[in-house]
Amino acid sequence: MFFIFDLDGVLYRENSVIKGAPETVCRLRKLGHKVAFATNNAMLSRKDNLKKLNKMGFDCTLSEIMASAYAAGLYLSEKKAKGSVFVIGEKGLKKELKDIGLKVFSVNNKVPGKTDYVVVGLDRKFTYKALKIARLLIEKGAKFIATNKDYTYPAKNGLHPGGGSLVAAVEAASGVKAFIIGKPEPYMLQILLKQRKISPSETVVVGDRYDTDILFGKNAGTKTVMVLTGVTSKKETEKYKGKEKPDYIVDSVCDLLDIFKP
Amino acid sequence: MFFIFDLDGVLYRENSVIKGAPETVCRLRKLGHKVAFATNNAMLSRKDNLKKLNKMGFDCTLSEIMASAYAAGLYLSEKKAKGSVFVIGEKGLKKELKDIGLKVFSVNNKVPGKTDYVVVGLDRKFTYKALKIARLLIEKGAKFIATNKDYTYPAKNGLHPGGGSLVAAVEAASGVKAFIIGKPEPYMLQILLKQRKISPSETVVVGDRYDTDILFGKNAGTKTVMVLTGVTSKKETEKYKGKEKPDYIVDSVCDLLDIFKP
Repeated sequence: MFFIFDLDGVLYRENSVIKGAPETVCRLRKLGHKVAFATNNAMLSRKDNLKKLNKMGFDCTLSEIMASAYAAGLYLSEKKAKGSVFVIGEKGLKKELKDIGLKVFSVNNKVPGKTDYVVVGLDRKFTYKALKIARLLIEKGAKFIATNKDYTYPAKNGLHPGGGSLVAAVEAASGVKAFIIGKPEPYMLQILLKQRKISPSETVVVGDRYDTDILFGKNAGTKTVMVLTGVTSKKETEKYKGKEKPDYIVDSVCDLLDIFKP
Repeated sequence: MFFIFDLDGVLYRENSVIKGAPETVCRLRKLGHKVAFATNNAMLSRKDNLKKLNKMGFDCTLSEIMASAYAAGLYLSEKKAKGSVFVIGEKGLKKELKDIGLKVFSVNNKVPGKTDYVVVGLDRKFTYKALKIARLLIEKGAKFIATNKDYTYPAKNGLHPGGGSLVAAVEAASGVKAFIIGKPEPYMLQILLKQRKISPSETVVVGDRYDTDILFGKNAGTKTVMVLTGVTSKKETEKYKGKEKPDYIVDSVCDLLDIFKP
């Protein structure tokens, strides 16, 4: 099988690794399964994600990592994007867009009167001024792309507003809906499967959020496993019946070894 | 008749008075009509609105002015609100809430772990930090009130994000819908009519925005007049047919004198 793991809430929580997660991933590899890691978190570049995972002992390669900031760059480079982009987002997102040759502007620069793209992800330095610039550039024809629509993300002291909350503000102000790169939209999954020539029926999405991870898998026809170490609670998960229900609901990623026995 | 005028786009645009508007209001008064002024703009207090209108020659009294910041205070004082409020908003809104005895916090203060209310209006100094605090306080039980849902407002160099865009961000982050004070919600109209013991059938709402002003009147069963000096264009207005159509569509507020002849 091909296992696609969400990161935050599945393999770690902020900077604490979930007990047994690296060993589980290692064991699955040894059993001949393929793995990849798909995150909506747009604060980190693909390389930053790699560093973080390997520091925790997951022993991955760059090509196994699909992150919404990287995927935004991939999407734009597939579209042969040229020119300039106004970014509401953090370092990792800016880096990925610079790396594909776009001229990157943010609220701290002198922004040109027109840009080709506006890309919005989580930006913990978001201001009204950035919202105003984004609205104006979209009105003038910039294409509006969002890394993800997660309204919150789990932080040390509870849930914090996610990139999706900023996307909601820009959508409201501009009257334009963003093109969404991240889960549950199919783009990141399509890329992972296409690169490996794997079909959805051989694939398992493992996640902690129903509305992003589980729907990501369901939308594409993969198997889905919900772990209870993250955002969505057992009670909430149990609301979903029939086709909506995840194929498996487990306490933690370690339980995968019981389900997918050799 | 009782004429309720929107301000921005009807009587003035930013700081420029619409030609003939003060004379029209004056003439309507002389013909025995009653007037009032209802604005969703939450940046100014009721007194600030009075000053601005009188400087432009509209010769109003404080009781004729209904502004969403004032109305938010009125609403909370009707509910016998006590305690503390976290405000995303500007000086005028904070003043109105202080004036009814609430302890007002904003992102620049040390905000308590819990407040009784979160009130959101347009705040041109809005930041991610304010969004994070608002989300947390709403999660902890603060009642969430918005002055208005205007997604944009007309400024000198085009449309800028309105209070509604910030409300959209807080709604997304908190998963809670705000209670809306401003137009097209009926609260401000109900107060104006109740105070004067006037029925909707004797009332005319005059506005430049279909989705706020005209619906404000339609929702309450008043007559409606759309003026073309503001946000909604003639072409857009002409989309509305039958019951949805404003009773009158005119170039400017001055045309009221032709419609409501003695």
